[in-house]
Amino acid sequence: MDKAAARQKFLDEFPALVAELEQILKGYGLSEEAIKWYRDSLNYNTPGGKLNRGLSVVDTYVILKGYGSIVEVPDVEYSKLALLGWCIELLQAYFLVADDMMDKSITRRGQPCWYKQPHVGEIAINDAFMLEGAIYVLLKKHFKQDAYYVDLLELFHDVTFQTEVGQLLDLITAPEDHVDLSNFSLEKHSFIVIFKTAFYSFYLPVALAMHVAGVSSEQDLKQAHDVLIPLGEYFQIQDDFLDCFGKPEDIGKIGTDIKDNKCSWVVNTALKLATPEQRHILDTNYGIKNDKTEAVCKQLFRDMKIDEFYHQYEEKTVTKLREQIANVDESRGFKGAVLTVFLDKVYKRTK
Amino acid sequence: MDKAAARQKFLDEFPALVAELEQILKGYGLSEEAIKWYRDSLNYNTPGGKLNRGLSVVDTYVILKGYGSIVEVPDVEYSKLALLGWCIELLQAYFLVADDMMDKSITRRGQPCWYKQPHVGEIAINDAFMLEGAIYVLLKKHFKQDAYYVDLLELFHDVTFQTEVGQLLDLITAPEDHVDLSNFSLEKHSFIVIFKTAFYSFYLPVALAMHVAGVSSEQDLKQAHDVLIPLGEYFQIQDDFLDCFGKPEDIGKIGTDIKDNKCSWVVNTALKLATPEQRHILDTNYGIKNDKTEAVCKQLFRDMKIDEFYHQYEEKTVTKLREQIANVDESRGFKGAVLTVFLDKVYKRTK
Repeated sequence: MDKAAARQKFLDEFPALVAELEQILKGYGLSEEAIKWYRDSLNYNTPGGKLNRGLSVVDTYVILKGYGSIVEVPDVEYSKLALLGWCIELLQAYFLVADDMMDKSITRRGQPCWYKQPHVGEIAINDAFMLEGAIYVLLKKHFKQDAYYVDLLELFHDVTFQTEVGQLLDLITAPEDHVDLSNFSLEKHSFIVIFKTAFYSFYLPVALAMHVAGVSSEQDLKQAHDVLIPLGEYFQIQDDFLDCFGKPEDIGKIGTDIKDNKCSWVVNTALKLATPEQRHILDTNYGIKNDKTEAVCKQLFRDMKIDEFYHQYEEKTVTKLREQIANVDESRGFKGAVLTVFLDKVYKRTK
Repeated sequence: MDKAAARQKFLDEFPALVAELEQILKGYGLSEEAIKWYRDSLNYNTPGGKLNRGLSVVDTYVILKGYGSIVEVPDVEYSKLALLGWCIELLQAYFLVADDMMDKSITRRGQPCWYKQPHVGEIAINDAFMLEGAIYVLLKKHFKQDAYYVDLLELFHDVTFQTEVGQLLDLITAPEDHVDLSNFSLEKHSFIVIFKTAFYSFYLPVALAMHVAGVSSEQDLKQAHDVLIPLGEYFQIQDDFLDCFGKPEDIGKIGTDIKDNKCSWVVNTALKLATPEQRHILDTNYGIKNDKTEAVCKQLFRDMKIDEFYHQYEEKTVTKLREQIANVDESRGFKGAVLTVFLDKVYKRTK
């Protein structure tokens, strides 16, 4: 099954989940108008992204169980895994609806942000809550009988809270309207990207699949964690690098981190290495919505050879991760191949 | 132990919970600045209300276990019950921080709303998320070993989702900026108040205490539910009534439901009984931020004798609830007295 077909198979599971959620609201006696509102919010905010996180749950499970490919997974099993994948996409939707409001963004995935839709506005806050709420409604309906049900609940609780903690540090470190580079540091950057991105995007999909596959001893979860968290950090550092140094035709967007005062790996590395003169240039040009000051920062980053530091970081990190994966203890059923798949998706991507 | 002392004892438990949450963030390696932010959010948004919901958990437990009063509850037991009470207050804080943003409110409990505090603004959305998140951090830490742990988790999930569903219907039925009384109905009002208020304010505290007390069979939870949900509805209808007909010196505030286009029991009852002429008066005067139009509505409600209909509703409801309570089956350990305490707090209150 090729990538597009796997994606389509996953997408085909979503309407049934929306129907189940609607059915529950109908059972409550909720008016048709309000049910339509929720349906619209679910459909507008949940699919439409790359779905990498959701798809990873299924992919990981296939490897852990030794299936040759997705087509070998029995239907009932596939649906359960896909449901967990959709729960991550719901969690992501919950974060994105809120993030867009907090960042005052205009578009998301090529369409207006949900809160910018006619009649939505601040109601989007409650809609975000209900996207998160859907996770626990679905888990209860489909996993209550499973021995690992409480593990799934705790995993979602823990990862949700960790993501929110990362978001908090990001919000108070780099407010869009107040530039103060002395707030930034590589240590804070590391914390933010691990908590805000790595836990829910890298660790969560694998840990979910591990619980269903019954490969979920504390040691095995730790083995996955200890590779996936630095891998997620690397992914975000790469994202920061591409925002500044990637070609728009490759990355499919024009980077705005410099103008948006983002606490990015690029600026943090530059701050660490800057002479007093270079620091002054950054203080007076970073975080301003202006093409000229942005160009000054970009030139400085090139002069400081931040791209070379990035490539050094990347090679060192990838070498270390490959070593860790090679040393994975597979005696209890965990498989290093799960991690290799993730690493290969990230390494040397240009978009 | 008198009411003030019971309240103080409950309040005294809160700082330790804040400290535990801080300790977890410290363990993550979060910066002191961000930990302070969270501490401030917890302290600003969680205590400060009447704490009725939180206190009810302890009160219910005392009755179920047959203690003479709170002082007889062993310390460790008391702390566990109070923690669950604080989890309801955290849930309430999560809702209120968000509600204030959605309603564009200015003050809450006599101080500026959290999102109106300097430097907070839209970050309050993430702060609301983290108030909810605290519930599951605390439950995991204190109840993971208990057989009813998963019941507590599901109870919080269910009630949180139900409250959000009620809030959704309220938001789309009565937007503050668009008056259309044909959206209103007593049926919608009933749904909104049951889902938005009764579940988390009345059913949740009792159900939590029942789980800890081990009096939590499906039948007993249903007995509690079947009284507490209509009782919660009655409480909110009374609230709506007092907002319009109560004396400001009694209720401690000046009602604003008419000006705020609230989908209140008063206007819904009037809409049901109105002649075409009276309906026209409502259509042209309700939901406008103006003293004169408000006075017109108030006079109409008096002319239509809405207060008499309220008193009829109240007597009928209280009679039926007393009957239900008298018929409670106490054979499995549940006690009707739990429900009487709630009813007596609501019946004939003026504030």
